[in-house]
Amino acid sequence: MAPPFKNDRKPDPNAPHWLYGRHAVLAALNNPKRHQHKLMATKNALDWLAENGREIPIEPTKPDVIDRELHPGAVHQGIAIKVNPLPDLRLEDICDAAKPGPVLILDQITDPQNIGALFRIGAAFGAQAIIAMDRRTPPLSGALAKAAVGTVETLPFIRVVNIARSIDALKEMGFHTVGMAGEAATDLPDFRTDRPVALVMGAEGAGLRQLVSETCESHLRIPMAAGVESLNVATAAGIALYGIAHPAAG
Amino acid sequence: MAPPFKNDRKPDPNAPHWLYGRHAVLAALNNPKRHQHKLMATKNALDWLAENGREIPIEPTKPDVIDRELHPGAVHQGIAIKVNPLPDLRLEDICDAAKPGPVLILDQITDPQNIGALFRIGAAFGAQAIIAMDRRTPPLSGALAKAAVGTVETLPFIRVVNIARSIDALKEMGFHTVGMAGEAATDLPDFRTDRPVALVMGAEGAGLRQLVSETCESHLRIPMAAGVESLNVATAAGIALYGIAHPAAG
Repeated sequence: MAPPFKNDRKPDPNAPHWLYGRHAVLAALNNPKRHQHKLMATKNALDWLAENGREIPIEPTKPDVIDRELHPGAVHQGIAIKVNPLPDLRLEDICDAAKPGPVLILDQITDPQNIGALFRIGAAFGAQAIIAMDRRTPPLSGALAKAAVGTVETLPFIRVVNIARSIDALKEMGFHTVGMAGEAATDLPDFRTDRPVALVMGAEGAGLRQLVSETCESHLRIPMAAGVESLNVATAAGIALYGIAHPAAG
Repeated sequence: MAPPFKNDRKPDPNAPHWLYGRHAVLAALNNPKRHQHKLMATKNALDWLAENGREIPIEPTKPDVIDRELHPGAVHQGIAIKVNPLPDLRLEDICDAAKPGPVLILDQITDPQNIGALFRIGAAFGAQAIIAMDRRTPPLSGALAKAAVGTVETLPFIRVVNIARSIDALKEMGFHTVGMAGEAATDLPDFRTDRPVALVMGAEGAGLRQLVSETCESHLRIPMAAGVESLNVATAAGIALYGIAHPAAG
C-alpha cells in the first residue's frame, strides 16, 4: 500500500506521473485530454486492451521492468502509462446548480485509496465534480487512480485554496451545502431538499474542521447500530449520495 | 497489501493467527471469547491502549520485531496479537427472523480487504451475522481483521459448505432473500418488504453465481449514472443495507 501523502508542499502540477492498473490505463488511453508519454504493458495486458477495444502495436514489456519503474508494491496488473496531469479546472466553469448531479467536497481527506474510492462513488452518482484542497491532496496517480478505476479521467477534479470559501461559492450558486457529521442532529433519511447538493465529507476520525462545518447549511448523520464508531469515508459518501437522491418515505 | 486468498484447501480451523492494527487488537483484548497467545506492542501502542481503557503491563516491543513476525508490508501500527480463531458458529443458532437486523451473505468474495470492509458495514447496520463459504474464505486475521476495525470480534461469522442451501434455510426461517445484481429489474429505491432481509453479495465483476442468484426471492440493483460499471462490493452492500432499512418515498 502506498504511504499516505504527508507533504504539505504543493507538488509540481505539471510533473508527469505514472498511472497503473488495467481500468485506470485503459481510461487514460481513451481520454483525448490526457497527454501520454510512455506505455508499458505485458503480453496479457495488451491482449486485455485489445479485447476492450484498444489494440496498441507495441512490444510487450516484462512485469519486472514495470516493477522497477513504479514504487515498491504497486499492484500494476502488467500495465502502466506515464502521463501529464490533467489541466486545472475552475469551480465557476464546472459547477452549475441548474445541472443535475451533486458536487462532492473533501475536507482534509489525504489517503489515496479513499480519494480514489470517492472518485468511483462520485462517478456512480453522476457527480458534477470533486473538490479538494490543493495543498493537502496527493496527485491523481498510482494507487489513487487505480482505486478510481478510470473515473479520474472523466469526473472533473477541482483543486481549491480554501474549502470554506468554495462551500460559500457553491451556496451562492444555488447548491444546498450539506456536511456529513456523526454528531449531526438530522438523520439522513429525514433530509429533504429541492436544490442540488454539495456534500462535504471529512476524514475518518477527525471529521469536518470547525469552520468548514459552520459554513454548511445542513448537517446529516447516517443512522448506525449502537456501539459502531464510523463507516469508511467512501462508504459513508456512497450512502449519503444514495440517501439524498432517494429520500426515505415517511 | 496481502495477496488475495487463492488456496482452495480449507485452512486448519484451529491454527493460531496474528491480528494487527490498534482497533483490531483492542477489540480482541476486550473479547472474552478470544484465546490469546502473545501480544507485542510498541511504547506508543501501549500508551494508546491505556488511553482506551486497557493498561497492559508488558515490555514494549521494537517495531521491527513486529515487522519480522508478520507478512511483509503488514501495516500493524505497532501492535499485534497471536490468537486462536473464534469458535465455529451454526446458522440455526445465530440467525432468527424474529430478531431485528439483516443477514449478509458473501458469494465467492475472497479479497480480505473487501471482507473486512463488509464486516465493518454489517456491524454498522446491526447485522445478525455474516455468512460465507468455508472453502473459499480466508481466515479472519491480518489485513482482513484490520479493515474490519474490531468488528470480527463482535459480528458472528458463519462458514457454510453451500451458499444456495443456506439461502434456502434462511428463507424457510422467514427471511426475505435478496440478491444484488447489476442486471436486476428492480431498483433498490422501489423495494419493499415486511420481513428481515438476507442480502446476498457477489464478487465485483463476477457477480452472483447462477444457482445462488436463482435461489434468491428478489433481485435489486443500485441506480447508477450511465457508463459507470459498478461500485466496490462493500460500498454497494452499505448502500443496499441503508436502502432496505429506509425505503424511498413514492
